Amino acid sequence: MHFGEPSGVITLTTDFGLKDPFVGVMKGVILGRFAAARIVDLTHEVHAHWPVEAGFWLQRSFEYFPRGTVHVAVVDPGVGTARELVAVEAAGHLLLAPDNGLLAPIVELFPSARILRLNPAQWSTLNLQRPSATFHGRDIFAPLAAELAAGRVRPQSLGEPISTLVPSWLEPPLIAPNTVSGVVVTFDHFGNLLTNIDAKLLNTFVEPQVYVGHQVLPLRRTYGDVKPGEFLALLNSFSVVEIACAEGDAADRLGVSRGAPVVVRDAVRHR
Amino acid sequence: MHFGEPSGVITLTTDFGLKDPFVGVMKGVILGRFAAARIVDLTHEVHAHWPVEAGFWLQRSFEYFPRGTVHVAVVDPGVGTARELVAVEAAGHLLLAPDNGLLAPIVELFPSARILRLNPAQWSTLNLQRPSATFHGRDIFAPLAAELAAGRVRPQSLGEPISTLVPSWLEPPLIAPNTVSGVVVTFDHFGNLLTNIDAKLLNTFVEPQVYVGHQVLPLRRTYGDVKPGEFLALLNSFSVVEIACAEGDAADRLGVSRGAPVVVRDAVRHR
Amino acid sequence: MHFGEPSGVITLTTDFGLKDPFVGVMKGVILGRFAAARIVDLTHEVHAHWPVEAGFWLQRSFEYFPRGTVHVAVVDPGVGTARELVAVEAAGHLLLAPDNGLLAPIVELFPSARILRLNPAQWSTLNLQRPSATFHGRDIFAPLAAELAAGRVRPQSLGEPISTLVPSWLEPPLIAPNTVSGVVVTFDHFGNLLTNIDAKLLNTFVEPQVYVGHQVLPLRRTYGDVKPGEFLALLNSFSVVEIACAEGDAADRLGVSRGAPVVVRDAVRHR
Repeated sequence: MHFGEPSGVITLTTDFGLKDPFVGVMKGVILGRFAAARIVDLTHEVHAHWPVEAGFWLQRSFEYFPRGTVHVAVVDPGVGTARELVAVEAAGHLLLAPDNGLLAPIVELFPSARILRLNPAQWSTLNLQRPSATFHGRDIFAPLAAELAAGRVRPQSLGEPISTLVPSWLEPPLIAPNTVSGVVVTFDHFGNLLTNIDAKLLNTFVEPQVYVGHQVLPLRRTYGDVKPGEFLALLNSFSVVEIACAEGDAADRLGVSRGAPVVVRDAVRHR
Repeated sequence: MHFGEPSGVITLTTDFGLKDPFVGVMKGVILGRFAAARIVDLTHEVHAHWPVEAGFWLQRSFEYFPRGTVHVAVVDPGVGTARELVAVEAAGHLLLAPDNGLLAPIVELFPSARILRLNPAQWSTLNLQRPSATFHGRDIFAPLAAELAAGRVRPQSLGEPISTLVPSWLEPPLIAPNTVSGVVVTFDHFGNLLTNIDAKLLNTFVEPQVYVGHQVLPLRRTYGDVKPGEFLALLNSFSVVEIACAEGDAADRLGVSRGAPVVVRDAVRHR
Repeated sequence: MHFGEPSGVITLTTDFGLKDPFVGVMKGVILGRFAAARIVDLTHEVHAHWPVEAGFWLQRSFEYFPRGTVHVAVVDPGVGTARELVAVEAAGHLLLAPDNGLLAPIVELFPSARILRLNPAQWSTLNLQRPSATFHGRDIFAPLAAELAAGRVRPQSLGEPISTLVPSWLEPPLIAPNTVSGVVVTFDHFGNLLTNIDAKLLNTFVEPQVYVGHQVLPLRRTYGDVKPGEFLALLNSFSVVEIACAEGDAADRLGVSRGAPVVVRDAVRHR
């Protein structure tokens, strides 16, 4: 499960947006150290200063990349303050981020993940420039990711093992008989609401009903199963409960956003 | 004209936006199967659930890529329902999309294009994961595009030839003596209005005048031919009639959007 | 300092946005001529028709890419009119743009930069298609960048040396005893205001204070040095004076945008 042979792929997840050259400059730094890097943007439109969303999408996405991929996530309101940087090895991938709860969902999913606290004293041979106080994505994460993806350094040589991360800013779902209570983590480009309720939590449910806003919605298979404009709930392609509006914008029409409660009840009482 | 030696280039055109990791995850799947793929985003900001815009831009853009390129287009309100997936070979390129009218403009431009209906039974050796009900871009299109671009499978081995596609949602322009009547297909980042009126339809016009909103505009060569803030019409760099406002936003200022009628008349009557 | 061995990297900076396939098509043209090109988007969200912002970000960013990189910048309200195209060699990089002031900040920073006026007569052997009147990014810049990055042509073979560029649209900062007066060049994705006041101009300042809108702000090291919601000024990671709001949007909250005056005074009078 450890990070083995690098795939040469590096993914980037930030709240930097694409309006400015921040992401481009990170890629310049990476290519300067590892010309053959294949760099993929996961997303740069994470809700500003909200590591929760980055961690959610990474947790749900990283395994679609080849094993040996280095994933860099920078949502970092504490940049330049005393917060630590960490690396997590899980399922043969390596993830780098500030230790602000961002990577907690990965360790939740892979309890055997190996966690390292990065230690600047151990990078001295890598000739990083003196980091600025406000752009560690460019000055620390990009060069480290390049060296790791190029296979020139191993994760364990960059820091010391630790046993826990700063926890996620979001409570995990509350599980009671016939009921799972979670929240909306974020909404997507189409206005579909994504929750932190994993499909597995509903495994024993016979007739799940999803409560959100003033709606009570049965689970459907796909958007086309209701008429355009109608609401639906489904177990989506990332295996979480999603609330959507067929060919419409559920977030907008329900007036519901990040942090809103979502409850799934089983209409058939278990004995 | 058939898809021959793959170029190794794959383009992606969707309405997924860049806010979420959907596009990034498709790239992860592609790179997992074909590490040397060069993936180019054509656009991910197609008007949601509107295949017309994707087909228009693909028709006007695909030949700027090297022959042997695989173009994936996913604007797919019917995902998970009974709609088919199709492949079109035209001008040495291969285009993949749901059969919802999206690729009709390609076949309009290349009547000799070869059309295939993709048949899941023929992919069994490719080890695709069981597709989700809502993200065929990741689960079907990405792995197929990777295998095709890598040259490991040929298009004709993935489905059966058919003779027609679901037609475009948009009527072609109406052609009458001295007059061509079309519509605004979409507007671009600058607010320029793009129509479905190909430059060739005006070949015999002596003094074309473009009617849109309450404006009557002569054809100009470029934006700088009028003063900033003035409207103009031109045959644009993609060979369609475009209505613009020099250094301004024509869509906003004319209050005109997708589907609005645009008529070109020849001020000089033909005999 | 001249452009030597190409790195194979090409960066793109435009005001084209990502809504349309303009950028994708430029990449298609590049890959058609130079299959191994590694293309990086610097940004495509430059304020429309405002070369100032493109020049600012390029000046502050280009050296983070490997030497031998070709940087293409297209913010070109005069496309198709009589404006010239130019190339600048600086610090081992090559930059291509219309001669509308865009590249002036590069030459300001590197007075020994070599400037060339591109001459279409010298490209005849490169088999460029006849350029459209409105998309020189695709028809001229993309193919030239590909040939240059591939090492098949040298910059000096594409035009004649000239000694000056069209100047920047923005005045340089005014320097007086204890005072530097500049302007806001642009704001970033977070609403941070970026000025044209380089950190070096404050080298001798003992206690710099930044005047912007109705605020007087001391210089801080990083965002976390003030409470969320408070304003601060800092010398940012691109070495210019920046005005920010911790975890907030300074541009929005100060009601200040491009061109607004920013003055830095030293609270300790020099003798």
